[in-house]
Amino acid sequence: MTVEDDVSPVPASSIDHWDHEADVVIVGYGIAGAAAAVESARAGADVLVLERTGSWGGAAAMAGGFIYLGGGTPIQKACGFTDSPSNMAAFLNVAMGPGADETRIADYCDGSLEHFDWLTDCGVPFKPEFWGEPGWEPPGDQGLMFTGGENAYPFNRIAEPAPRGHIPQMTGKVAGEKSGGFMLMKPLVETATALGVRAVYDVRVQTLVVESDGRVAGVVARQYGETVRVRARRGVMLAAGSFAYSESMVKQFAPAIAGRPAASIEQHDGRAIRMAQALGADLAHMDATEVAFLIDPQQTVRGVLVNGLGQRYVPEDMYSGRIGQLTLYRQEDTAYLIIDGDAQEDAMAATSATPFLKRPATWVCDTVAELEAEIGLPVGSLQATIGAYNEAAARGEDPLLHKKPEWIKPVGTPVGAIDLRASCGGFTLGGLMTSLDGAVLHVSGHPIPGLFAAGRCTAGLAAWGYASGVSLGDGSFYGRRAGRSAATA
Amino acid sequence: MTVEDDVSPVPASSIDHWDHEADVVIVGYGIAGAAAAVESARAGADVLVLERTGSWGGAAAMAGGFIYLGGGTPIQKACGFTDSPSNMAAFLNVAMGPGADETRIADYCDGSLEHFDWLTDCGVPFKPEFWGEPGWEPPGDQGLMFTGGENAYPFNRIAEPAPRGHIPQMTGKVAGEKSGGFMLMKPLVETATALGVRAVYDVRVQTLVVESDGRVAGVVARQYGETVRVRARRGVMLAAGSFAYSESMVKQFAPAIAGRPAASIEQHDGRAIRMAQALGADLAHMDATEVAFLIDPQQTVRGVLVNGLGQRYVPEDMYSGRIGQLTLYRQEDTAYLIIDGDAQEDAMAATSATPFLKRPATWVCDTVAELEAEIGLPVGSLQATIGAYNEAAARGEDPLLHKKPEWIKPVGTPVGAIDLRASCGGFTLGGLMTSLDGAVLHVSGHPIPGLFAAGRCTAGLAAWGYASGVSLGDGSFYGRRAGRSAATA
Repeated sequence: MTVEDDVSPVPASSIDHWDHEADVVIVGYGIAGAAAAVESARAGADVLVLERTGSWGGAAAMAGGFIYLGGGTPIQKACGFTDSPSNMAAFLNVAMGPGADETRIADYCDGSLEHFDWLTDCGVPFKPEFWGEPGWEPPGDQGLMFTGGENAYPFNRIAEPAPRGHIPQMTGKVAGEKSGGFMLMKPLVETATALGVRAVYDVRVQTLVVESDGRVAGVVARQYGETVRVRARRGVMLAAGSFAYSESMVKQFAPAIAGRPAASIEQHDGRAIRMAQALGADLAHMDATEVAFLIDPQQTVRGVLVNGLGQRYVPEDMYSGRIGQLTLYRQEDTAYLIIDGDAQEDAMAATSATPFLKRPATWVCDTVAELEAEIGLPVGSLQATIGAYNEAAARGEDPLLHKKPEWIKPVGTPVGAIDLRASCGGFTLGGLMTSLDGAVLHVSGHPIPGLFAAGRCTAGLAAWGYASGVSLGDGSFYGRRAGRSAATA
Repeated sequence: MTVEDDVSPVPASSIDHWDHEADVVIVGYGIAGAAAAVESARAGADVLVLERTGSWGGAAAMAGGFIYLGGGTPIQKACGFTDSPSNMAAFLNVAMGPGADETRIADYCDGSLEHFDWLTDCGVPFKPEFWGEPGWEPPGDQGLMFTGGENAYPFNRIAEPAPRGHIPQMTGKVAGEKSGGFMLMKPLVETATALGVRAVYDVRVQTLVVESDGRVAGVVARQYGETVRVRARRGVMLAAGSFAYSESMVKQFAPAIAGRPAASIEQHDGRAIRMAQALGADLAHMDATEVAFLIDPQQTVRGVLVNGLGQRYVPEDMYSGRIGQLTLYRQEDTAYLIIDGDAQEDAMAATSATPFLKRPATWVCDTVAELEAEIGLPVGSLQATIGAYNEAAARGEDPLLHKKPEWIKPVGTPVGAIDLRASCGGFTLGGLMTSLDGAVLHVSGHPIPGLFAAGRCTAGLAAWGYASGVSLGDGSFYGRRAGRSAATA
């Protein structure tokens, strides 16, 4: 163990001077930190944010920017969709499970409309326009999209489908450049700054400072090679992101995504989780991950997706993140998209926010039997699958997996396949256990005095499942709670 | 939080008298505790075991008694099997993964022959007779069996198949009564007792006692309504089992097995893990579980196993614990065994250690089409699966899943199905991180002074996969290490 690895708490009695002081010290200036900063300052606290990089933003500013909101938001209504907190919870309870925390989901859904208002009051812009095509994001500045498979089987039989992916409006959006997440972070940070929130950049928090009675009193950090001691008069709030980039933690807890972090940033090294664990903080759902499936959904939906046994396993119009989870965890990270020439041509021409994910066919053959042999699938397996698919598709049906009729079309010739082995990547969803008020919980069940957390260093809404927008959703929602709790601690 | 939930450490300075003292205090008298007691005493320590129930034994004494040993043991050799530590490791590295700790596996395999000798020196009897039929255990006192699918696809292509499930001989064994696990525990406890190891029963350890410098100095327990303080001059060794019976921990970490603990005992409440977490101990593989599949393997092997889409997913001659894992985690806990009248009759007549798990057909029909409709499988799905299976079976082949030729037979009529939904149960495999010497590791990476652990309260050999005998194997192997380390701390 090097000194840098040591996350053991430092006794407050050993510190003879503080380099900075504030009522509330927030570790990380991503979505959870920004939401906490605003609410903490509004509750009257003097707030200091410590950010490891040279600027605010975190993973949020690099993200597409989906925030999972519902229950009948003005954007949902303007786009003609009906929703309610209970309908939203019915979906999340199934889609985020098994192991989903139904109490937290109910809390989140009940507060969703108020949270939408809070975001718009802070200046986050949403354009009331719906994007209904398959895809990771809208191609333009549309503000609403299905982002969790709400309108796909089996979820469309469990709750009334309503799109809940709200994306801040980025006028003149250019693929690969600043996106919706930037337009979420910018207004929140501006709001925080106007409220007097201070920020220190390029400072890396190393460990927590603890009073003899166990209360968290501050942090010790490193900046430009020097040790920096920061006192928190009321509370420390951890908002430092996931452990997707900690090789050792991923191996211990989420080995299925070892070597494949995605949609995350290198700063997500899990250290905030470690620092809290050293105080006896509890964890949950450490194996849970978001999984991106690296192909344009405009292709997936027009093909037939099979596993290494040539079997279908998910309706191809399902949310791509769920296809990713089912592929990585349940199909040995092995999938092939069977797609005929016409369908591939249509997919290549279809509008998409991710044209760089449109993938050429790996193999193209005259017959399914030839394709099966080319891929190396068990003899007869793909022929049986495509035969059964085509037979039902001729009637406009998909009795096996209930793909929506609009996407059902028999597979013709020439027939190709896209090799989708090792095409999954993702970030971790597990982390610290917190109360609904954002207090970090000890393994004994009580809050650790003076310690708060939100965002991806905590176990939030998702247990096994996921929907795009859940991370910025629970990060901002419970970031606010944690900030308020810290301010009034 | 009630006082009983509090696992926060007690300062040694607050304790004014000790009710018991020893060099090494072992929490739990199951397999890990017994192995630790023997080695600790042999290393010269005065040893005290604190056991929660009224007697020694733990889950081990109730178990079938498999110990996973190999590398060329005298029993393997006597039964005509060749094995080596590297061949054993090649199997375990794949079968225990993803996320298997290859360093620990190599260590375990390299020490396996010596461990076999140690067990026999302690008086554990093994009969050099191999049982080659499908089943959970041998029906009699045979001492060797395949217990991890070593001889099934794909494992039989990865390493030379060798049986490694060594089972202590129970003469006059009666199904449901004392089994091999009892004959493992009895000699070990007798050995420990002869070495002067003391035991106190009906005492429930509540929390750890810690010196001001962080060293673990003892435990606080409850016995007959009174508080009992126990001093450990050299070390405390935790050997208190899994968290399979902690509803809250299972929900947090392993929700797939919520409500279905099996092959475990109610004392496995995870408290030892909690007590160590309160000191900053690290965890690993908390979602991993053993999964029992509750049907006699003599039936499974003679049928065709399909999921809720009517698809096959595992060769039916695979180790039943792996079928359980694949069914619970990857097939939504949904399986049906398709079996014709003749095969069912053969299975019912076949010798088995678990006749109580022979299950009648839930549905019986004249045709597969009727059966498909009765079960409620998607139209055409089961017909396609059985059609393809029978077509290849007529040639003695299984191109899809490579079931061994001896078990391949076309499915005839009348054809039945056994409903195997919700037929999985199991115990947790995750727990405390330890060094190869049995020291409990802090999240910073260093050993927690004075604290040792082994058995199912630790993360052992298994990450995602499992083989029967791995728990008694790593519990006894690393129990010895931990006992020796504690004695010399």
